[in-house]
Amino acid sequence: MSQFSFQLLHGDATTSARRGRFYTPRGVVETPAFMPVGTQGTVKGVEVNQLRRTGAQMILGNTYHLALRPGAEVIRRLGGLHAFSGWEGPILTDSGGFQVFSLASQAKVSDHGVEFRSHIDGRRMEFTPERAIEIQQSLGSDVMMVLDHVVKLPNDRDVIRDASRRTVAWAQRSRDLTIRDDQVLFAIVQGGLDEELRCQCADALVALDFGGYAVGGLSVGEPPEDMYRILDITCPRLPADRPRYLMGVGRPEDLLSAIARGIDLFDCVMPTRNGRNALAFTDEGRLRLRNRRHHDDPRPLEADCPCPACRRSRGYLRHLFAAGEMLGPILLSIHNLTYYQRLLSAAREAIVEDRFDAFRRQKLAGWGLPLSLWP
Amino acid sequence: MSQFSFQLLHGDATTSARRGRFYTPRGVVETPAFMPVGTQGTVKGVEVNQLRRTGAQMILGNTYHLALRPGAEVIRRLGGLHAFSGWEGPILTDSGGFQVFSLASQAKVSDHGVEFRSHIDGRRMEFTPERAIEIQQSLGSDVMMVLDHVVKLPNDRDVIRDASRRTVAWAQRSRDLTIRDDQVLFAIVQGGLDEELRCQCADALVALDFGGYAVGGLSVGEPPEDMYRILDITCPRLPADRPRYLMGVGRPEDLLSAIARGIDLFDCVMPTRNGRNALAFTDEGRLRLRNRRHHDDPRPLEADCPCPACRRSRGYLRHLFAAGEMLGPILLSIHNLTYYQRLLSAAREAIVEDRFDAFRRQKLAGWGLPLSLWP
Repeated sequence: MSQFSFQLLHGDATTSARRGRFYTPRGVVETPAFMPVGTQGTVKGVEVNQLRRTGAQMILGNTYHLALRPGAEVIRRLGGLHAFSGWEGPILTDSGGFQVFSLASQAKVSDHGVEFRSHIDGRRMEFTPERAIEIQQSLGSDVMMVLDHVVKLPNDRDVIRDASRRTVAWAQRSRDLTIRDDQVLFAIVQGGLDEELRCQCADALVALDFGGYAVGGLSVGEPPEDMYRILDITCPRLPADRPRYLMGVGRPEDLLSAIARGIDLFDCVMPTRNGRNALAFTDEGRLRLRNRRHHDDPRPLEADCPCPACRRSRGYLRHLFAAGEMLGPILLSIHNLTYYQRLLSAAREAIVEDRFDAFRRQKLAGWGLPLSLWP
Repeated sequence: MSQFSFQLLHGDATTSARRGRFYTPRGVVETPAFMPVGTQGTVKGVEVNQLRRTGAQMILGNTYHLALRPGAEVIRRLGGLHAFSGWEGPILTDSGGFQVFSLASQAKVSDHGVEFRSHIDGRRMEFTPERAIEIQQSLGSDVMMVLDHVVKLPNDRDVIRDASRRTVAWAQRSRDLTIRDDQVLFAIVQGGLDEELRCQCADALVALDFGGYAVGGLSVGEPPEDMYRILDITCPRLPADRPRYLMGVGRPEDLLSAIARGIDLFDCVMPTRNGRNALAFTDEGRLRLRNRRHHDDPRPLEADCPCPACRRSRGYLRHLFAAGEMLGPILLSIHNLTYYQRLLSAAREAIVEDRFDAFRRQKLAGWGLPLSLWP
């Protein structure tokens, strides 16, 4: 009997946004939720105590990276990914599919699985649907993702169709495996920007009855309206009583537009990667902290933000980047993660109060973005 | 009326170690105490909340670095070094003397002061005793250090004598300045490894009646026994009711040997610099975390250490360094700072219980160091 369930609390009256609650053995995740990315067993530069205080409920780990280094067996011997990293809340691990097809070299795919060379040491490796689950079982993540076949976009329709078909076949093989009831399996809808292929893939996966459904292969350079078009046709085909996860997305404006379409879970490196590069998210748009104009600015990034970066001045943060101090990337990563969590928390409130559309418009206006571009 | 005072609580019966209490407007410092180094307005990689939890009571800031970047005036406008950095406890700033003579290029010294070029942008600058205090007044540090003339060792006796004489003359000019009663001025004893010059310098400075006394110009590559010889003759000449500060020292074994000679305050980059380089201090000696033998070691660095690094395994810490993750340097810096603070806390307890000599011998034995080398 699975220890996971998803409770739908409220549907927004103005959009398809959903307020939900994802129950896991390691705690409840209030949705919509944003998962910070801890690629190699740590959210870059952020200690777990700091991470918890940003409001993060659940984090993501990368199966591909962890399998290569230090190796799933080492992590298993060290007590699993939770004990290893010190993060006690729920963890979702991806399947490695995206990285094998983007980071690794010489990826050779067959119906059996995918062979590739490690981008770290060139070592030859193989992921099969079974091996991807076995690795995630060693890691001991709470949510495991099935191995999927991700192709570059744009691409030939036949290539996308073939990858989508293989993704479903791999999902079937994953579904047939025995998994513990303190882990749950999510499937990934593929199909590129082709509405028909997306629908076929979604329907086939739904028939297999997974604990949750991800939409993959988006946010890979396509115009936003293409992503939203795919979400518009995919989300309604997914069961209402399972969490929906949009992988690798994204900018704050993307999150709100996807929430409006019924997405519940997100992950993205954007808050931390941008933080390391001196870019801060605020309700009035983005700030580039390397800019000289901040050098003696006594204001915090945001007056009402409770994060440690906002207990200092912009002048101080600018100084840290100018002086090459590690604390600059650390503080801005923490601020951006806090910004994302506060945004999602406010979004959850807006949904419950049936004013998500107005909320989204107000945020876009604050960021200086036209609604036409983020429909 | 100065808001600073130093209370001698207990003298160890087995050594010259002192247990004291240094009262400052921003809090009490239990001595002997170790001050983490926040060169550029931050202890590298460590957020102030984390820093406080290591047990740090007082930290150090570098006048030279801060004057160059972002500039003392910018820090003053941003509320002073406490508000700037977020550290609310006491701060000691050095005078810049050591850095001018070691880091800056083309330093030209006269009795008036020292001209030099910034090591960052080559800008021509000048420090005089008056300017060094003025900068520290802008920074708003609690303890200000007088400008001193530091020379390389070994050196001609005449050069050392001249620098020592100039240091006293500069201290006299600093003493004549008006300072607020929420800041206090410490003088610095120079004189190289020459006992006679050290005694002359100490006596002259003591006659000027400073709030505290530092021993400078040591730990610059000389054998430990030379440093201890100088402490042996200098400490007894300093007034018992003022804190004694050994600048830039040092290794755990140096701290204990200096405490045994009556030193109260220390600062050193060693815990953080070594932490960034994957070296951890423990009661059983140093661990190099890059070493492959740690890769699946489930033990923490130290079983009884409360720091966040010790809530993980050595295998995890090794992985962070192998993967180039920022969290490796962060966690090891925090562990080493915690190690230093716990060492000093235990030293304070040993002094009060009149067993400091036995304490020191036991620590040296744990570190695998012969007492003969750290007399």
